[in-house]
Amino acid sequence: MNITKKIISAHLMSGKLEDFKPGDEIALKMDQTITQDATGTMTYLQFEAMGIPKVKTDLSVSYVDHNTLQQDFRNPDDHQFLRTIAAKYGLVYSPAGLGICHQLHLENFAKPGATLIGADSHTPTAGGMGSLAMGAGGLSVALAMAGAAYKIPMPKVVKVELTGKLKGWASAKDVILALLKILTVKGGVGRVFEFTGEGVSSLSVPERACITNMGAELGATTSIFPSDERTKAFLKAQGREQDYKELKADANALYDESYTIELDKLVPMVACPHMPDKVKAVAELAGLKVDQVAIGSCTNSSFSDLSAVALIWKGKQVDRTTDTLVSPGSKQVLRLLARENLLDNIIDSGARILECACGPCIGMGGAPISKAVSVRTFNRNFEGRSGTKDASVYLVSPLVAAKLALDGKFSDPKTWGEAPKMLDFPDNPPSIRHLFIDPSKDDKERSKVEILRGPNIVALEVFDVLPQNMNAKVSIKLGDDITTDHIMPAGAAILPLRSNIPAISEYVFSKVDSDFVKRAKEFGTSVIVAGHNYGQGSSREHAALAPRHLGIRAVIAKSFARIHKANLANFGILALTFANPDDYDKIEQCSSLGFDFSPLFDKTKTHASLTVKLDNKEKLNLNLELSDNELEMVLAGGLLNQVRANKA
Amino acid sequence: MNITKKIISAHLMSGKLEDFKPGDEIALKMDQTITQDATGTMTYLQFEAMGIPKVKTDLSVSYVDHNTLQQDFRNPDDHQFLRTIAAKYGLVYSPAGLGICHQLHLENFAKPGATLIGADSHTPTAGGMGSLAMGAGGLSVALAMAGAAYKIPMPKVVKVELTGKLKGWASAKDVILALLKILTVKGGVGRVFEFTGEGVSSLSVPERACITNMGAELGATTSIFPSDERTKAFLKAQGREQDYKELKADANALYDESYTIELDKLVPMVACPHMPDKVKAVAELAGLKVDQVAIGSCTNSSFSDLSAVALIWKGKQVDRTTDTLVSPGSKQVLRLLARENLLDNIIDSGARILECACGPCIGMGGAPISKAVSVRTFNRNFEGRSGTKDASVYLVSPLVAAKLALDGKFSDPKTWGEAPKMLDFPDNPPSIRHLFIDPSKDDKERSKVEILRGPNIVALEVFDVLPQNMNAKVSIKLGDDITTDHIMPAGAAILPLRSNIPAISEYVFSKVDSDFVKRAKEFGTSVIVAGHNYGQGSSREHAALAPRHLGIRAVIAKSFARIHKANLANFGILALTFANPDDYDKIEQCSSLGFDFSPLFDKTKTHASLTVKLDNKEKLNLNLELSDNELEMVLAGGLLNQVRANKA
Repeated sequence: MNITKKIISAHLMSGKLEDFKPGDEIALKMDQTITQDATGTMTYLQFEAMGIPKVKTDLSVSYVDHNTLQQDFRNPDDHQFLRTIAAKYGLVYSPAGLGICHQLHLENFAKPGATLIGADSHTPTAGGMGSLAMGAGGLSVALAMAGAAYKIPMPKVVKVELTGKLKGWASAKDVILALLKILTVKGGVGRVFEFTGEGVSSLSVPERACITNMGAELGATTSIFPSDERTKAFLKAQGREQDYKELKADANALYDESYTIELDKLVPMVACPHMPDKVKAVAELAGLKVDQVAIGSCTNSSFSDLSAVALIWKGKQVDRTTDTLVSPGSKQVLRLLARENLLDNIIDSGARILECACGPCIGMGGAPISKAVSVRTFNRNFEGRSGTKDASVYLVSPLVAAKLALDGKFSDPKTWGEAPKMLDFPDNPPSIRHLFIDPSKDDKERSKVEILRGPNIVALEVFDVLPQNMNAKVSIKLGDDITTDHIMPAGAAILPLRSNIPAISEYVFSKVDSDFVKRAKEFGTSVIVAGHNYGQGSSREHAALAPRHLGIRAVIAKSFARIHKANLANFGILALTFANPDDYDKIEQCSSLGFDFSPLFDKTKTHASLTVKLDNKEKLNLNLELSDNELEMVLAGGLLNQVRANKA
Repeated sequence: MNITKKIISAHLMSGKLEDFKPGDEIALKMDQTITQDATGTMTYLQFEAMGIPKVKTDLSVSYVDHNTLQQDFRNPDDHQFLRTIAAKYGLVYSPAGLGICHQLHLENFAKPGATLIGADSHTPTAGGMGSLAMGAGGLSVALAMAGAAYKIPMPKVVKVELTGKLKGWASAKDVILALLKILTVKGGVGRVFEFTGEGVSSLSVPERACITNMGAELGATTSIFPSDERTKAFLKAQGREQDYKELKADANALYDESYTIELDKLVPMVACPHMPDKVKAVAELAGLKVDQVAIGSCTNSSFSDLSAVALIWKGKQVDRTTDTLVSPGSKQVLRLLARENLLDNIIDSGARILECACGPCIGMGGAPISKAVSVRTFNRNFEGRSGTKDASVYLVSPLVAAKLALDGKFSDPKTWGEAPKMLDFPDNPPSIRHLFIDPSKDDKERSKVEILRGPNIVALEVFDVLPQNMNAKVSIKLGDDITTDHIMPAGAAILPLRSNIPAISEYVFSKVDSDFVKRAKEFGTSVIVAGHNYGQGSSREHAALAPRHLGIRAVIAKSFARIHKANLANFGILALTFANPDDYDKIEQCSSLGFDFSPLFDKTKTHASLTVKLDNKEKLNLNLELSDNELEMVLAGGLLNQVRANKA
């Protein structure tokens, strides 16, 4: 067995591993859950609606790292809500400024062999520690907290063999950029990427976590590394040796697919605008002026990353026309930088030091100038995500970012001389564990906690069940690779509305088509049509919930990204694909679609397809992209209706 | 002579000191100017319009410390504009993240005996160093950069004698809070506060600067301390011993008024919502829950302030329900905290560490929860300025703020035990002087610099001259103590519009009366009516410029704050007071006023008053609140029209 199957096998809540082939729905017990504040408020409103007095996981952590700017009452009110709800229901709470959820989780809580879902698409970061860690919609996370299974299609397991050792200016980021170049942002759908081979032991836990983090950009279910001596050393340094267990694939383990990455042949890479798979060699961009460099994010904000940056900058100043920003991943990272006298190098370089939080990566400040070339160590470069609509974002490693900040322009890494030696993780790193707020172990004390809600926290609405028949117009027609950032933009102006669905719904597709909301409201009930890989990127369930609020009842696409497809089902939206992909061309924006859903309500039959009448004329065949379980959810008008019904 | 008169005398550009009595207009040579980014873009657009190739001051610095969040292209585009314009016209440029302008100026540039104007009302901070430092509108600063005199009414000089020494938990902040309690926010108008007495030598330069900084809240022209051995020691530590010169009042110096503050009798004080003069003893608020503590701002972000906070927090954690934020005043402060192992205390306390910038003080992030009690070490607690409209802001010293953060509520300082001993300023502080961008000394090289302008930077509009006759309606009637924050709000949503008058004008009085803009536009030409102390607070000229854009041609008030009155004249708005204050009650919002300005155009006469016809009936007498020079400006439609005419 491979590692993935070992963990799945140990966490199946029904059936046995050998019963399932890739694509079959499996039900997994979740050991841990995490949320961040931009997805968390909705998650906990949903958890509350389930009426359970205490989370049933081994550990659930509520992090605050997204909405940290606090321009008005909304963000701090959300944080207060999250703090009190954590105290009430037995979650650990991580306050704003402590760090980025995935970096903090790696340092403090992630365990080899554990299962974890998080209401954030970069939850696979913990795969660097050997957790089976998946991004999910908030409602799925709420259910996992309630002790229910997390249901996913049985993934294919892809072997990625690493040979040799990284050298020169190449680093862990270049491993995942190399994979993205080969596989594209659609290449990982339905797959777990399992890393193996002699190259694994040359990578530290934070380097592994950088790779599994950005596996999300492949569309993968998750990515995972073995747990070995490097893992043990990292846990020991964090005072968590007891959390260690060895985890490796059997010698003769089977995989569904396999790739080999020769680490010693990698060169510094860059993902060009506006997709993480538009990967080139850094050398190819030589001469391009760099207006901004931003270092940090859950991908690259560890001590390992920032110490390398500090060494490159020692005694030097960044280019005076390149606005350079550094966001450390956690207060442990910041304290270590100060203790090892590396913080001085960063301050003295002229770089700006921002709070330990997501910051510029989610457009929460740090926007570049108009038409900027912005070089970032982040994981996504979607158009407009930086806050500046006409900026071009390039994704690179911290080593490359640090060098480009000094030079103010791209050049060939061959001319850069010797690369800095990466520092080992220091002994006795200062623990920041005391800065989390642990819940009381006393049930009585917890039950007395009052949940505090600001005026921006709006109660959940109850959605209708699916009608038997439906006439709907197409409110928008889109192309391939539409991200959840396209559907429900983030950024400093919109993120504060995450607890308020009516308010945030006004921004659905706002960066793509400013008339969409007006049109959807006018249509009352409507349908979205899209190309391949609809809903890739962030796990935000608001990209399903807000369209549902606007009357969207179905999305017809050529194909879907995993998490978003599950979110659609959770909120009662039908995910449909074209039986004949050419039919995509027949439907236009404002086309009329006549649906007869009545056969779907016959529980004695299985349902895999339906027909729809286009403009009262032609009939098109559509496939249901739903498990039986998900179909039931959609018929009920969404998962929360089901949960409510079961409770009653 | 007192210190103030010595500096004035040395900088008079016409006449002699003995020619002037308080209130007479004097013309002063300015040695230094400063701007920050929220006022700077407009200042430099105005300077550009003057067509001068290089600033004529000894030193002009363009700081970026306000708009540092960068939610979109507008802030970074503004910064790029400021950087390139500094390089073009010979200014030193201080990039975002380096620190707060007044703290940085104190550390790096302020000189005893120098004159300084800044497009920021807290420019008097440099009075702690013995500079005669005044806040002014951006256009006045632009003129000073062009070598023109800064014209102000000859101030009264008020002696503030300090006796004894601070003890216990009382600190410099309590000196100025005590003065505010006595004198109120109107008490300083037309006055310079000059500190003297045996208590002076017990205060360090940063402590003195805290006091002179908040002299702005008295409405004072400025405040100033002697330059003595403490000053010399501070300058020496900064490697600027050559900038030292002794500065003290003659033994028999005369003053217009005098007060005595007994330092040893001061107790910790707090300015209660929503004015800095609503001062009580901290003990009076015992029991009040504190939801937020924010430490920093140009008032209290020095090493002296933050080291005291770090000592109070050593080994302790802040209350878990009190969101605690720290913004260091400069990168030197941050480096010193790290070097002296004090940064660890702050990180480990659970406090959040924000960028070295103004931050929460100007509502640029850090807003508290709904209905919060927010305790801040800042200088202003105007309603809504924090970003949360229904929050209550209390102003205290860093010592008090640090203690309240630990306890989560107010209590009597008598119960707090021994106060921490303030640390001496450390030897060999790290210089950050290399992080400023100095302009080229080569005129040719400077002339080649291209000024980069983003799309949000809108060219200046040309205003009409004053008409001979004018019928205007009253577009708004206001009470006493209206601040420039009321007139032209700041905060994260509005500040990015500071370079775009048409856009920012949409927010004039938006927090007071959301219909004002609509009404002003409908009226076309209109007039503002207000009570006492109209235009106190921030120096933002946008509070004159944006109303002017909306057609405001006169403000009739019971009295005016100094800087705003000058800004009104600069932009061609008549400042008028009621000859009979009871007439205030006769005018209503929407009243019609008939003005005959024609006598004012007769240059052979002096003009001190005019009459206005109210609702086509009664005639009211109004006083002109203008020097002859200012009247000419208003007749010309504003100072920039005058400058343009003189150039032609």
